[in-house]
Amino acid sequence: MKAKQWVLKKQFQGNPKSSDVGIKEISLPNLKDGEVMIECLAISVDPYQRLFVKNAKPGDVMYGEQVAKVIESKNADYPVGAHVTTFAGWTTHAVVPGDKLVKVPEYPPDVPIGLALGLLGMTGLTAYYGLLKVGELKEGETVYVNAAAGAVGTVVGQLAKLKGCKVIGSAGSDDKVKYLKTELGFDEAFNYKTIPDMPTFEQTLKRLAPKGIDVFFENVGGLAFRAVLDQMNVDGRVALCGAISSYNSTDKFTPSIPSIGEPMTMKGLRITGFTGWAYSAKDKNNDGLKEMIKWVQEDKLKYPGHNFKGFENCFKAFLSLFTGDNIGKVLVTI
Amino acid sequence: MKAKQWVLKKQFQGNPKSSDVGIKEISLPNLKDGEVMIECLAISVDPYQRLFVKNAKPGDVMYGEQVAKVIESKNADYPVGAHVTTFAGWTTHAVVPGDKLVKVPEYPPDVPIGLALGLLGMTGLTAYYGLLKVGELKEGETVYVNAAAGAVGTVVGQLAKLKGCKVIGSAGSDDKVKYLKTELGFDEAFNYKTIPDMPTFEQTLKRLAPKGIDVFFENVGGLAFRAVLDQMNVDGRVALCGAISSYNSTDKFTPSIPSIGEPMTMKGLRITGFTGWAYSAKDKNNDGLKEMIKWVQEDKLKYPGHNFKGFENCFKAFLSLFTGDNIGKVLVTI
Repeated sequence: MKAKQWVLKKQFQGNPKSSDVGIKEISLPNLKDGEVMIECLAISVDPYQRLFVKNAKPGDVMYGEQVAKVIESKNADYPVGAHVTTFAGWTTHAVVPGDKLVKVPEYPPDVPIGLALGLLGMTGLTAYYGLLKVGELKEGETVYVNAAAGAVGTVVGQLAKLKGCKVIGSAGSDDKVKYLKTELGFDEAFNYKTIPDMPTFEQTLKRLAPKGIDVFFENVGGLAFRAVLDQMNVDGRVALCGAISSYNSTDKFTPSIPSIGEPMTMKGLRITGFTGWAYSAKDKNNDGLKEMIKWVQEDKLKYPGHNFKGFENCFKAFLSLFTGDNIGKVLVTI
Repeated sequence: MKAKQWVLKKQFQGNPKSSDVGIKEISLPNLKDGEVMIECLAISVDPYQRLFVKNAKPGDVMYGEQVAKVIESKNADYPVGAHVTTFAGWTTHAVVPGDKLVKVPEYPPDVPIGLALGLLGMTGLTAYYGLLKVGELKEGETVYVNAAAGAVGTVVGQLAKLKGCKVIGSAGSDDKVKYLKTELGFDEAFNYKTIPDMPTFEQTLKRLAPKGIDVFFENVGGLAFRAVLDQMNVDGRVALCGAISSYNSTDKFTPSIPSIGEPMTMKGLRITGFTGWAYSAKDKNNDGLKEMIKWVQEDKLKYPGHNFKGFENCFKAFLSLFTGDNIGKVLVTI
């Protein structure tokens, strides 16, 4: 069996360029006991992959998760036809040992299998654990989430509403703002690109969250980070799951956030960095996933997304994460 | 009774100037029931007072804690001769109601009463709660503390050693570095003023903490903040008690810390801002203070400090906090 793979040709410098990557074809080996052959159904593109490239070598397959169908099996736990997720990278086919596979649970009818990479996968669970475990959200509190129209942010806002909270989101276009308010039920939303400076940003938060912010779900980084801290309440929590504004920076010491000492100490704030993976690994019974599936069945969660079609569009899909053109989860369906 | 008081004449802009403050004399009122008259023994000067001035008005007495002796009393709980601490500000005498006083416990012989403002007061307890509660320090871990020769840092290092940990400190002169290593038992110490750039700072930390840093006791802020995060271990904790590098800044959005998203998320780090006061208030039985007094009795804690003598030197003592001339706790004894 042949497989097509996206490989790194050259480490990214600043903004990733199409000349940094390429597609090659390889022949897959025969199966050994315990292994299966998978055919990719959809590939997840995510901002974190930008960071992983920093530790990759030229020739490495682009890192990432996919949902796939087992097409040949020497592992009784994963028979032909089973749906799995795995970190096989950007590849159309692969031979994978059973211990690198996660079985996709039976979905309700009409729920697309791609959700295993989004709402019912890494990004949805990142929102779930970040808001409810890291952020320790309590009923009646106020949440602010940036990159609110993204794969994680769209879920954060909906979960906050399910938990009886007020939620404010920021996004990069008027269309996104409208979508957040009319389709996803955000209480407030604003287009950060129309905000001219940090004092105006602070006034905007003050106006939209007059009782202050209790939980800040942070995906972005940059100057605004400090402005949000200044609007937080005593004992506020920051669930820090990303900092997309800095991922393409070539110098990690380029100043981009002002000192946070004053609001942190005076208000006893806590910032916790986390990944959905780390929390999923601790959640032995998959309680998070079970609760999310229940909400999907009850029609309580929407799952906007943008599907790029065709394996050759993986890199284009990846670049779209940094231009902010999409609402919800970005996938490549094969 | 007359009292001398330091008052704010003009809000500080950038570095505090002596023309921003002045001394005035007032007449104290007669005591009402429940009140006492106190005579100041020593005044604490601390970096946090720089922040409090931002909320003060011209004419306000400079904010701060003092240890004092009761010289007249209409409160049976605080008889004449009792030692108390109170936030009466920079004043030689004051009339204070009983509910604004804290009794100083009986000290072991030879222990100076000024420790009620330092090792056995706010700064010592800030080190105690920050390292042991906020930082959740465990035996065998590695601690890095900056401003290590300061009132809080000198205690942090000693407590870390008492808890069987490795401790690395940074300070602003070779004399301080020598003092930390030879007198206070720090495992490693370095003079940050001799470090030419951030890559060298990182290499220094890597060399001195080859197993990585588990707890970062942060007093400073600035660019180095990010460099330390990069040397921290998975699940590391930052106890953020101050950011002296930014206190005299006139623009809170002057960038001074680079984005922290990458190390925070990838390593699941946690930053908790705190004050010693907030934790003292939670510690209803004063367990922290009792443990600290026990260690002093057992001769396990040293208490370096610099006493400015005379009420007229309060502002000079305060300015010395920002020039880094002193080791340990800075007090003004009256």
